[in-house]
Amino acid sequence: MNDPLAGQRARIDAIDEQILDLLHQRNELAAEVIATKITAGLPVFVPERELAKVAAFRAAADARGLDMEWAEDFLRMIMSSSRARQSTADFPRATPDPRTILMVGGRGRLGSLYTRMFTASGHTVRVLDQDDWDRAEELVAGIDAAIVVVPIRVTGEVIRRLGALLAPGVVLADFTSHKADPLREMMAAHPGPVVGLHPMHGPDLDNLSKQLLIVCPGRAVEQTAWLLDQFRLWGLRVTELEPEQHDRVMHLVQGLRHFVAVLHGSFMRSCDLTPGDILDLSSPIYRAELMMTGRIFAQNAELYADIVFAGPERRQLLLDFCDHHGRLAELVRNDDRDAFIREFEAIGKFFGDFAGQAMQESGYLIHRLADRFA
Amino acid sequence: MNDPLAGQRARIDAIDEQILDLLHQRNELAAEVIATKITAGLPVFVPERELAKVAAFRAAADARGLDMEWAEDFLRMIMSSSRARQSTADFPRATPDPRTILMVGGRGRLGSLYTRMFTASGHTVRVLDQDDWDRAEELVAGIDAAIVVVPIRVTGEVIRRLGALLAPGVVLADFTSHKADPLREMMAAHPGPVVGLHPMHGPDLDNLSKQLLIVCPGRAVEQTAWLLDQFRLWGLRVTELEPEQHDRVMHLVQGLRHFVAVLHGSFMRSCDLTPGDILDLSSPIYRAELMMTGRIFAQNAELYADIVFAGPERRQLLLDFCDHHGRLAELVRNDDRDAFIREFEAIGKFFGDFAGQAMQESGYLIHRLADRFA
Repeated sequence: MNDPLAGQRARIDAIDEQILDLLHQRNELAAEVIATKITAGLPVFVPERELAKVAAFRAAADARGLDMEWAEDFLRMIMSSSRARQSTADFPRATPDPRTILMVGGRGRLGSLYTRMFTASGHTVRVLDQDDWDRAEELVAGIDAAIVVVPIRVTGEVIRRLGALLAPGVVLADFTSHKADPLREMMAAHPGPVVGLHPMHGPDLDNLSKQLLIVCPGRAVEQTAWLLDQFRLWGLRVTELEPEQHDRVMHLVQGLRHFVAVLHGSFMRSCDLTPGDILDLSSPIYRAELMMTGRIFAQNAELYADIVFAGPERRQLLLDFCDHHGRLAELVRNDDRDAFIREFEAIGKFFGDFAGQAMQESGYLIHRLADRFA
Repeated sequence: MNDPLAGQRARIDAIDEQILDLLHQRNELAAEVIATKITAGLPVFVPERELAKVAAFRAAADARGLDMEWAEDFLRMIMSSSRARQSTADFPRATPDPRTILMVGGRGRLGSLYTRMFTASGHTVRVLDQDDWDRAEELVAGIDAAIVVVPIRVTGEVIRRLGALLAPGVVLADFTSHKADPLREMMAAHPGPVVGLHPMHGPDLDNLSKQLLIVCPGRAVEQTAWLLDQFRLWGLRVTELEPEQHDRVMHLVQGLRHFVAVLHGSFMRSCDLTPGDILDLSSPIYRAELMMTGRIFAQNAELYADIVFAGPERRQLLLDFCDHHGRLAELVRNDDRDAFIREFEAIGKFFGDFAGQAMQESGYLIHRLADRFA
């Protein structure tokens, strides 16, 4: 019992208790800030304010001999704790009077999240799900906006059916992960304000602060402004984009990425190497890879089939990818190390300065993963 | 200047200053703990102690109404700050008297890291690099261990050349990322103690705490124990494994993973979609994917050619993978959504409970990435 470390450890434990007390006080204050913002109708997340706070915190850490990069991470963790409080609070409203919003397909997980957010801002939300079409006329009466949140296979049909019922001034929007086709269909089905939306986040969030929302304007932009303002007040980063460019990038970001994850899992199964065999021998990066692959198989097969088989253009890209794989594998088949090195160097040129940024950012990731899961 | 938030923000800033002061004190104390450990010859990282500390911190956070998962992350960040201090400190030594270690190929980045660590523990390190073979006999005279840290292409040759010079009692070890062939070559080249090692981490580390080291015992295990004890004192997690099982898993963890990353980069180039086009539209997961891909092209083409072309067995696995891709792509070509869903569900069964763990762990990752890089 004569541990030379015991005294030092007790002092560390006492410091940790003080830090936790301060964090508790900080969270209470952050809740007050949110209450003040709601009263004043101010946005929950202000990028400039956050940047200024981060810069000040880095300087304060540096003055105490602490690493500034580390300090920034640390502050962001503290701030994420404050934001979590937000999830149980009310949210500010973008309009003087509450609006009425119809969520079409609103009982899914994403629809439920936005229903909760609109409601917490004092708006009225109605839900039109697949079994509710017999009372659709009643549900659309008097609404200010309708948001279509249905699987991509039925989006076109739902838009046509809904468009026939809408009053001319109602904002028609969709949350589909494609933008060109749904936007065209909405423009054809409804003569009033139209906007295509793609929330770039999953449904398992307490709040929407800092999440990305892609917006493809359709018609009568000024009449959709209140809706976008509401998204910004929740802290969403609203980014405008051409629908064709959106779709082109999403074939890679969603279609290719999920196909490759399924391919990875499928190949592991064919090799009879289970995640358990591999996990304890993984570097942090491969562990992350394995978790990103594994998470898919905890989810719905239909959802991933929708993503992979989302139209002929995406399927063609996946087939091009397979051909490309065949060409690269030829180098492996022929043991052509020199050609592999030439290809590698050409990709390096194409990536340019981004490779350095990626090195730094992934280095951060790797260290955090090693801290957390080693 | 009548900002209703100004007062609340000033109080938050004051709390942050107090937290930073406490962190500074905590780091000073942690440095004292390390000094005590070095004096007492105790290991730097003790998993049981860390688990107990984490459990106590979670309970203390819970008592203050803070989220326990969040609190654990928070504590691990604080502890990683303490560990960073370690990098400038001395390290404990596993042997009463200093040993003399020859790093063969020791001027590379991994060799330099271990040279620094051995030296910080009071051992003597000599370096035999490719230009030093004319004075190799002088360099091996009186050494206790030789560690081969050379590119995999020349490992066999270096082991044969070195083995001919070693006294029978010297420990021969290697750091190659294959284990079966180098271990066989070491056993043939040297009649004394032999151990195969694979440090599962990159060279850009301040210290080795919590990193994974795979060990494949060769001969006279008891005479290699001091070396493994030294690794453990630095905080490495030392895991023993059969060389064949190691290699089989590494074909996936290293060979396949890096091949797929090069394939990803190569396909982006062929689509003419730059990282810049994609980055602002990425979900946190795809951003991580892009960073893990991009980091590769900031590095040496030869290194990745070595990894991908590391022997006929690995090349065969990569060709099998390409065939497998072709079969999965057939489902896309034939628009066979149902077969895709059946395959997806079979993989889900194969992954079993791991999918749920992956969902949770990747969820953590996604949230942290969104905090940090959104």
